[in-house]
Amino acid sequence: MSDSQLEFLKQLREALPMAAKIEDRREALLENSRDFGQLVGEPVLPLAVVYPQTVADVQNIMRLSYEHGMPVISRGAGTGVSGAAHVTGLCIVMNLMQLNRIIEIRPEDEVAVVEPGVINYDLNEAAAEFGLMYAPDPASYKMSTVGGNIATNAGGLRCAKYGVTRESVLGLDIVLADGRLIRVGKNTFKGVAGYDLTSLFTGSEGTLGVVVRAVLRLRYQPVDERDVSIVFPSLEAAVMGVQSIARARVQPAILELLDLPTIRILDEQYQTDYASRGGAMLLVRLDGYGAEKEETVIREAFSDGPMTLSSSGAPEATQLIEMRRTSRGDTKDDAYRMGEDVAVPKSLMAKYVQELRKIATAHDVDVRVIAHAGDGNLHPTLSVEPESGENPLIRLSEALEESIRVAIDMGGTITGEHGVGLIKREWLTWEQSQDVIQIQHDIKSLLDEKNILNPGKAI
Amino acid sequence: MSDSQLEFLKQLREALPMAAKIEDRREALLENSRDFGQLVGEPVLPLAVVYPQTVADVQNIMRLSYEHGMPVISRGAGTGVSGAAHVTGLCIVMNLMQLNRIIEIRPEDEVAVVEPGVINYDLNEAAAEFGLMYAPDPASYKMSTVGGNIATNAGGLRCAKYGVTRESVLGLDIVLADGRLIRVGKNTFKGVAGYDLTSLFTGSEGTLGVVVRAVLRLRYQPVDERDVSIVFPSLEAAVMGVQSIARARVQPAILELLDLPTIRILDEQYQTDYASRGGAMLLVRLDGYGAEKEETVIREAFSDGPMTLSSSGAPEATQLIEMRRTSRGDTKDDAYRMGEDVAVPKSLMAKYVQELRKIATAHDVDVRVIAHAGDGNLHPTLSVEPESGENPLIRLSEALEESIRVAIDMGGTITGEHGVGLIKREWLTWEQSQDVIQIQHDIKSLLDEKNILNPGKAI
Repeated sequence: MSDSQLEFLKQLREALPMAAKIEDRREALLENSRDFGQLVGEPVLPLAVVYPQTVADVQNIMRLSYEHGMPVISRGAGTGVSGAAHVTGLCIVMNLMQLNRIIEIRPEDEVAVVEPGVINYDLNEAAAEFGLMYAPDPASYKMSTVGGNIATNAGGLRCAKYGVTRESVLGLDIVLADGRLIRVGKNTFKGVAGYDLTSLFTGSEGTLGVVVRAVLRLRYQPVDERDVSIVFPSLEAAVMGVQSIARARVQPAILELLDLPTIRILDEQYQTDYASRGGAMLLVRLDGYGAEKEETVIREAFSDGPMTLSSSGAPEATQLIEMRRTSRGDTKDDAYRMGEDVAVPKSLMAKYVQELRKIATAHDVDVRVIAHAGDGNLHPTLSVEPESGENPLIRLSEALEESIRVAIDMGGTITGEHGVGLIKREWLTWEQSQDVIQIQHDIKSLLDEKNILNPGKAI
Repeated sequence: MSDSQLEFLKQLREALPMAAKIEDRREALLENSRDFGQLVGEPVLPLAVVYPQTVADVQNIMRLSYEHGMPVISRGAGTGVSGAAHVTGLCIVMNLMQLNRIIEIRPEDEVAVVEPGVINYDLNEAAAEFGLMYAPDPASYKMSTVGGNIATNAGGLRCAKYGVTRESVLGLDIVLADGRLIRVGKNTFKGVAGYDLTSLFTGSEGTLGVVVRAVLRLRYQPVDERDVSIVFPSLEAAVMGVQSIARARVQPAILELLDLPTIRILDEQYQTDYASRGGAMLLVRLDGYGAEKEETVIREAFSDGPMTLSSSGAPEATQLIEMRRTSRGDTKDDAYRMGEDVAVPKSLMAKYVQELRKIATAHDVDVRVIAHAGDGNLHPTLSVEPESGENPLIRLSEALEESIRVAIDMGGTITGEHGVGLIKREWLTWEQSQDVIQIQHDIKSLLDEKNILNPGKAI
């Protein structure tokens, strides 16, 4: 450690009260050196991990880091999968997990005000006491923080009906790179005063400022929930099914698509036998006062033909949704595996999967697909056995790149909900023009002229 | 006209094809010199009005204006009410009404791609052929353009359930100040690649760039619509009613609140007699598969007590919603009148109106209120007879300013859906800190360093 780094740490300790823990044990550094995203090479350790307890702590940390030009990666639970929280060079990590108060829930306003370290699940538990819910539900909702959800503009299953994180964020308190505290957005459902800075910070992956407080829109929990699983003969038929549901004016809260390889893995894990019934599955959750009628409409729409529907009221479909929620159907073998997150226009989902299968065949890798089908957001998993043929990792990564190219060629995006982070930065230039990327870098420079806020991420 | 202005116009004519009309007749200049917002003093006329027919025309206009440092106000139908399209000095007006093609409607994707001059109503007519709708419905929807709706991030009645304009804008093509064309956002429902520039441009009132193409999310029209009007004994009771509806887990598509003075004016205009039944009214539209059950729930919730409900299926409530939609209940007298657009946390709506009435009494002015009650967005109208007492205009404007202060003190905003434009700029500093306003000016400078895009507006 250099003298200037030692001096920085000394000043950091002096600037913070006793309560704000500063960690430099290797174990803590390692734990905070990355998120759930793939890591190429050995982990890089931060200089220290600091756990602010108050907004003033965050301001002091940023003020000092700004003075010293010290990069800061702010993070929550680190459940992101794009490497946005990966350490890549000299920096400190600011772990916001202990800034975790639910400041208030105002049921009459359907609003919650929280600190960034609050776990998504805990907020939902607290809101449930008033019959309310916080809608965004990324797969990690039992572990991930609201601050992390905001940093990545996280999606989830329920966003088919209730929108992504951005739609639930009304206002933010942000600590800027130099330690100043600002408040953007509003405390009300509607508001158009000035530019939409709230949306600019939402999804910016800690590169523009540090979220220290969020005003969130809650919703009343639906009165009724009905789950239906539908096995289709083929993936193409299931995608047609997605369109039939929309044309029937049904708006599912959850609408998930599983392909045959995914079904096979679930069958294996849970001793079920769905794979014998067809080639793809839709999992549908209907909620609210219309749920009963919507279920009837769906059952009628799929009564003719080779589809198999779960019985009304049976726990089967609900179990499948939970299975889907907690798993991509990953098995515990030793295969190399890469999970993706493209989105395409809804009508092109089947075509996209056909192209994907061609790519997989051409490179001799395996592919399976799940999708938030209501949003056209697909999560393919490409995998290859380490011992299979020549250069398995190269084949895998070539197939992956082609799969991204094809999504863009279809008018899609490189990331539907996971974010660019570190891992998808090179692909961003495939999707966006140099002018658009430059504007984003200019905005970044404007708010962080010393480039100390999670440098090298998101854009 | 100075030589340099003449030279600019000459070059403008040369730069554009014959089809792109350039107007300098006084009548056209006058018509394009302002929007529906209040005008203080005489109208200021632009140098010329230009009607681009193609995106290339817009680029040529901006390129030339950039070279000459000529300010450009881009506008559509001019139905905005905050003066965002008011001419305040030397400039040309770029009227985008003739850039009005619906480029495509992709029903299977629930997406429309349009030019900015398309009228909101026309898009809805075209979408209806596929059973689809474009949800944002500002009161001006029969006249206003989609581009104008995007420039102001317009709200409307249906946004209680379906969100404001921003929630329906997926991607934008933007001509920058120097004439470069960029594409931001996405062609899919979800997408988190890079910063959310789409939201930054949405609501920026033509100060950051010119929208020349928009990818919009459509929705299938609901299967069922049921309207209920409920007369409450008092405004306080009606606001309690709003909360009862939410607690009953009912999500109305439309939820409008009318106070007694507004009801009286409607009674007068339409020879009805609602005012005799109570002190405030809620207009509720329920839609979708749940509409029938939701109507039952609402009727049960308000069956006990002094409320009067419209009969089920009677045309009365639907007529009232249409009356409300097209009118604030403005009468044709000579009163000075100022309409406002604050939003407050939902639970504080009654308290806000109480304060508002105190303010009106103190300044001896009249007040009436309608509200998008599902969103806490209130539209008070303050008015005073020209001959009543001393300094009627000063009393009116003092009352107005106090009404804005009170909204901010309650955690509200100076503008729920109309935008800052020209008229509310001084109030923006009441709501936002100097740091936040500076960031917005810095972003403006970044994208428009010569300050030629609608200078002096929005921030």
